[in-house]
Amino acid sequence: MAYLDRVRFESVYPILVQDMLEHAKGYNTPNEGIEWLRKNLEYNVLGGKCLRGMAVINTYAHVLGRELTKDEYEQAAKLGWLIELLQASLLVADDIEDGDEYRRDRPSWHMVPDVGMIAINDACLLKCTLYVLLRQYFGHLPYYANLVELFHETTVQTELGQMLDLISARRDKVDLSKFTVAKCERIAESKTAFYTVYAPILLGLYLGGAATPETIEQTRKIAIPLGRDYQYHDDYLDCFGTLHSFGKEIGRDIKDGKCTWPITQALVRASPAQWAILQDNYGRDNPIKVKKVLNVLSDLQIPQIYQEYAKTAHATVQEEIMQIGSMGLNRGIFDDLVAVMYERQR
Amino acid sequence: MAYLDRVRFESVYPILVQDMLEHAKGYNTPNEGIEWLRKNLEYNVLGGKCLRGMAVINTYAHVLGRELTKDEYEQAAKLGWLIELLQASLLVADDIEDGDEYRRDRPSWHMVPDVGMIAINDACLLKCTLYVLLRQYFGHLPYYANLVELFHETTVQTELGQMLDLISARRDKVDLSKFTVAKCERIAESKTAFYTVYAPILLGLYLGGAATPETIEQTRKIAIPLGRDYQYHDDYLDCFGTLHSFGKEIGRDIKDGKCTWPITQALVRASPAQWAILQDNYGRDNPIKVKKVLNVLSDLQIPQIYQEYAKTAHATVQEEIMQIGSMGLNRGIFDDLVAVMYERQR
Repeated sequence: MAYLDRVRFESVYPILVQDMLEHAKGYNTPNEGIEWLRKNLEYNVLGGKCLRGMAVINTYAHVLGRELTKDEYEQAAKLGWLIELLQASLLVADDIEDGDEYRRDRPSWHMVPDVGMIAINDACLLKCTLYVLLRQYFGHLPYYANLVELFHETTVQTELGQMLDLISARRDKVDLSKFTVAKCERIAESKTAFYTVYAPILLGLYLGGAATPETIEQTRKIAIPLGRDYQYHDDYLDCFGTLHSFGKEIGRDIKDGKCTWPITQALVRASPAQWAILQDNYGRDNPIKVKKVLNVLSDLQIPQIYQEYAKTAHATVQEEIMQIGSMGLNRGIFDDLVAVMYERQR
Repeated sequence: MAYLDRVRFESVYPILVQDMLEHAKGYNTPNEGIEWLRKNLEYNVLGGKCLRGMAVINTYAHVLGRELTKDEYEQAAKLGWLIELLQASLLVADDIEDGDEYRRDRPSWHMVPDVGMIAINDACLLKCTLYVLLRQYFGHLPYYANLVELFHETTVQTELGQMLDLISARRDKVDLSKFTVAKCERIAESKTAFYTVYAPILLGLYLGGAATPETIEQTRKIAIPLGRDYQYHDDYLDCFGTLHSFGKEIGRDIKDGKCTWPITQALVRASPAQWAILQDNYGRDNPIKVKKVLNVLSDLQIPQIYQEYAKTAHATVQEEIMQIGSMGLNRGIFDDLVAVMYERQR
């Protein structure tokens, strides 16, 4: 990716922290409140892959078709950090919802001493910060209202997807007959594809003045499958990644009873005997039961099937990208993302 | 209040539920997701006093200076329900943050079987619903952007206030030297006054075409003290209400170590010996310690001091209201609210 320099991207973030703290000071927030907010903004937003934020800059540069000036870079990075703020808000909440004690090799925010359930309000404040700064940085621009609506739409999509993800997972009460490929697809598109691919690219298009009904529609056609496959890859790594490469506990989704790609693919291929094993062992907090599920998935060759799927999906997206030349979009926007997304190990 | 008919107000809410469910169906949300969303929208939004929602309608009617037509009432009620949705979102999260197991004489949402921490995402979805419907109902109006900004501003204020409230309360680690009257005031204004009084009145002004820099400023001058006093009353009832009238456990704030009106007022009046008792017993999950704190508060005549305070505060607000005749605002807007807010028992 042309603008995949995380160090440079991260160098812009202190500006956002400072501006939000100034805003809170304007409300007479006492010092201890300012310090808490600072910790929240630093602990939870920094330290990720920054893929979504940098995709905004990358898109913008491709739209302009040249190197960004220093000011242009900073403006795009600010917008990129706003989508990172949305993601941070979602992840802080997600870690509590899923009971995940670690994130990015550190304790999750709610596991940090003295934080606990204050993390819920802190997650909300990360989202507030997004809108405060969106107004401050982009409020004077003609497409400001579009940006606000895009963030609203992205949020509702993601939280509806998160809802489906959470209510499908009934640990100890899993009913696998309710797990369908269609439902898994809906969850992945909704909870991941919107904020991971669609929104960042659209933000870059707005910034570059290239967002039209046609380019938005074309973006959606490519971004949603791409983001969906990104989530499938995550689902796959949960079963067949290595702890080292994935950075998370293996089999967590199995333990929690999530409706993911591997299990829904296994179900359409399982013999009655295999189905029974899956039904008896899926969604239980028991490493032996998790292992039994993993064994059935291996017997059904889910890893090989996944590799095949990813290859075909990659090719399909490539084909879609080939056709956009005439639509006012630059295929470089997608090429860089595709390269990163289909090849990641974690 | 002219439009304080809760039954009529509640009769509009099913329209909002239906419209949000249709929106979610438009995203191909499967049936079980639609049903979950419906339960969330019904369980958490209905059943309150509806004071905030009805204040929108009341303000609008006073601005027009006549009875509302059926269509005008419905439009105002829809906007009123949007502030109720914001409140519902805040309360669902608040109950988890404070560990409150009951709300409105029923289990809090996170205590309902099968809900648990999914309640966090559900709280976020209530806020999303607000913006989806705000756009649907008011997106075509010239002041739509103002409404969006008002909801954003109200949210950031409330969540900053909630942050201060939560980080001040350090159960078992309370340092009363950090509890000041100024901090208590800041918490009450921020976490309660904005969404309880300021925002509902402003929404009514926008609806009636009466929001100008002058009327907004005048509203702020009256609404913030009024809302602050509403929170102080809540703080007072926590110590000296009756379980029956208050509907919540008495002494909950003492147990949790919250920075509230009674404790901050007691601290400025306490002898060194009384201060020591408060320091040893405040913020402990122990009914005997809570009782010891309540005894000191009684010895310091906090109930009488509160009654005096409320009387003076009420008179001060009345005086402020007397002066608004020339500002383009109708004092009836405030009179009705003041009557309800200074006289409530719960």
